[in-house]
Amino acid sequence: MEYINNELCLGPLKKSLSVLTTDYMRPTYVYDLDFIAQRYKAMSGALKNTRLFYAVKANPNAQVLQKLKSLGAGADVVSLGEIKRALESGFQPQDIVYSGVGKTKHEITEALKLGILQINVESLPELERIGAIAKSLNKKAAVAFRLNPDVSIQTHPYIATGLKDNKFGMELSSLPKLMACLDKFSDSLELVGVSLHLGSQMLEFSGYEEALKKLKAVFIDLQKKAPGLRKFDFGGGLGIFYDRTDLELEESLLQDYAKITLNVLGDLDCDLQSEPGRWLVGHCGVLIAQVQYIKTTSEKTFVVLDSGMNHLIRPSLYEAQHRIMTLKKQNESHTVDIVGPICESSDVFLKSVSLGQVREDDFVAILDGGAYGYSMASVYNLHELPNEICI
Amino acid sequence: MEYINNELCLGPLKKSLSVLTTDYMRPTYVYDLDFIAQRYKAMSGALKNTRLFYAVKANPNAQVLQKLKSLGAGADVVSLGEIKRALESGFQPQDIVYSGVGKTKHEITEALKLGILQINVESLPELERIGAIAKSLNKKAAVAFRLNPDVSIQTHPYIATGLKDNKFGMELSSLPKLMACLDKFSDSLELVGVSLHLGSQMLEFSGYEEALKKLKAVFIDLQKKAPGLRKFDFGGGLGIFYDRTDLELEESLLQDYAKITLNVLGDLDCDLQSEPGRWLVGHCGVLIAQVQYIKTTSEKTFVVLDSGMNHLIRPSLYEAQHRIMTLKKQNESHTVDIVGPICESSDVFLKSVSLGQVREDDFVAILDGGAYGYSMASVYNLHELPNEICI
Repeated sequence: MEYINNELCLGPLKKSLSVLTTDYMRPTYVYDLDFIAQRYKAMSGALKNTRLFYAVKANPNAQVLQKLKSLGAGADVVSLGEIKRALESGFQPQDIVYSGVGKTKHEITEALKLGILQINVESLPELERIGAIAKSLNKKAAVAFRLNPDVSIQTHPYIATGLKDNKFGMELSSLPKLMACLDKFSDSLELVGVSLHLGSQMLEFSGYEEALKKLKAVFIDLQKKAPGLRKFDFGGGLGIFYDRTDLELEESLLQDYAKITLNVLGDLDCDLQSEPGRWLVGHCGVLIAQVQYIKTTSEKTFVVLDSGMNHLIRPSLYEAQHRIMTLKKQNESHTVDIVGPICESSDVFLKSVSLGQVREDDFVAILDGGAYGYSMASVYNLHELPNEICI
Repeated sequence: MEYINNELCLGPLKKSLSVLTTDYMRPTYVYDLDFIAQRYKAMSGALKNTRLFYAVKANPNAQVLQKLKSLGAGADVVSLGEIKRALESGFQPQDIVYSGVGKTKHEITEALKLGILQINVESLPELERIGAIAKSLNKKAAVAFRLNPDVSIQTHPYIATGLKDNKFGMELSSLPKLMACLDKFSDSLELVGVSLHLGSQMLEFSGYEEALKKLKAVFIDLQKKAPGLRKFDFGGGLGIFYDRTDLELEESLLQDYAKITLNVLGDLDCDLQSEPGRWLVGHCGVLIAQVQYIKTTSEKTFVVLDSGMNHLIRPSLYEAQHRIMTLKKQNESHTVDIVGPICESSDVFLKSVSLGQVREDDFVAILDGGAYGYSMASVYNLHELPNEICI
């Protein structure tokens, strides 16, 4: 993010954001589709021979999905709602991988009827459910085991998922029972893949490398028993920086990540799959909001926006710090708390930060809102959902 | 909550919940309108001569609003969306008090055109904005100052609002400027009230009593200068227990709260107003969800529900513990983690709790979901919003 002619610009093509406020009605997410394309190309270039399945939960905006589809991405979905959205946005059933710990009978039935590419299985009872439904439909379900090699990664406890005591994935010790279930439903289930996902916002890779190696050995062993096993899905989770713009460093981390991944997995006889979300879209969106009030007390100055935790809950939920910048460059700045309009003390974006001098009705951009922004928005306090614009 | 004939029952009339699962399609909030009526009557009985304005943000369900209107409640709203919902549910503009730190020009304009009863002002620039808009509309706006006496209360830091360093309310030292603004807009603004709100989940009242006394002195002083000042709005925030059902103790706390309030304010020459939300509706709703999987690992057993932080975010956001019970009484119980279907490690309702022995497809009730449940729900992961039923 930088100012050109005093206007805040987004993305590598430096698109001005101020023009978007002409008809401003309410807080607006802006997504730069060219920026998304650049990120996608960087990642698919680094992860050679890997098919990328975009994690729709990060941002299910239809135009974002269409763009990623046009670039060659598949879709990683976690509900029937996301399957429908992906199909409406141009993905084919064979582009879709279906993950998630709570798939209902109805969801599995619809997924099998549609013929989606692969179901990532999170538990033995889920595998049994898929087997029974596939049998009743006279279909053969292509499943992948999400396995949990129980290594920890450096990340926020709320978004680490590869740990032994959380709800995701299956222990390696459960494999005999899983294989027995495959045998039981041999006409209705085919093991096509193994999948791994350690968590979100991964910025160092030692635990990841350890997990890959563990799972590689398991994969080779499983291939002897399951002739259809041909996909190694190494998940997503590559982190981005929220505290600074340093795309070069992120690119360098991507190279490290890709090198580790391909060094470990490159000699496997299989197809590689990955499920990136945040890395592809996080930086490519901002939330534009309007300053309602500058409220000064004896202790501090509050900048009250028309958008808050209802539109971007990450600060309240994860104590995430999204940088905020004025759309017009200001020569002077002041130290302020930036807050939303919601009647909760947790509705705070940033405390004691430097912001360009703003007045009522000025606009600001809340950065890095392309992932887990609109997708987690609510109508709490019965404020409208934000608007969305793709540029 | 208790079992009658092995069926979990809600509210003082002990209404069975199992009957509601016959046509179960998705997670469902159930609100007991008779229970709400009982709570309303208890509170309005205790707070004699006080007009209760229900805090719509707690639960804006239209039938809940209609019920409270029929009982004589007004509505405390925080957005134009809530104003519209209240009007659609039978409230008149003169039943509505409008609070909140981020009121937009459009919202204020509409509120003034509608002629709502009172606007609770949170900052000097807001007062100036209301004055300017009222003047342009040739209206006289009835305003109350939300004053912040800066006392702390025992509560979670996320839901304490009466502190000096948060965005709510105005310092007593700002009164001269506020009065000057009233003078400036003497044809367009009338000070009709003073308001106070210390925060949520208040279970002891020493700080509250201190604040009331401070504000009472201010009120008496202000009445000399503002002849239209006739309302003392002492806010809401009376707490409920989430960890146990002890309506008698809550009733006794209500009596303490009322006694302190009326002892301090009873001799004022004014109308008393209060803005309860959670106390009226919190216990009166449950979220019914269906068990999807019992997932056993070497370390623990997970009960995976079809409802999670998308439908009830309080556990993830505030580490709130909502008790969970099976709809059918079970003779045996097991120690489990109860989790939702969302792809986030934070999507956990309860860890290591005792739950009646359940199987796939059984139903559970997540208790005390009548407040800040549906109102904060989202379609994260593109799961549908929950259903709502009033009984």
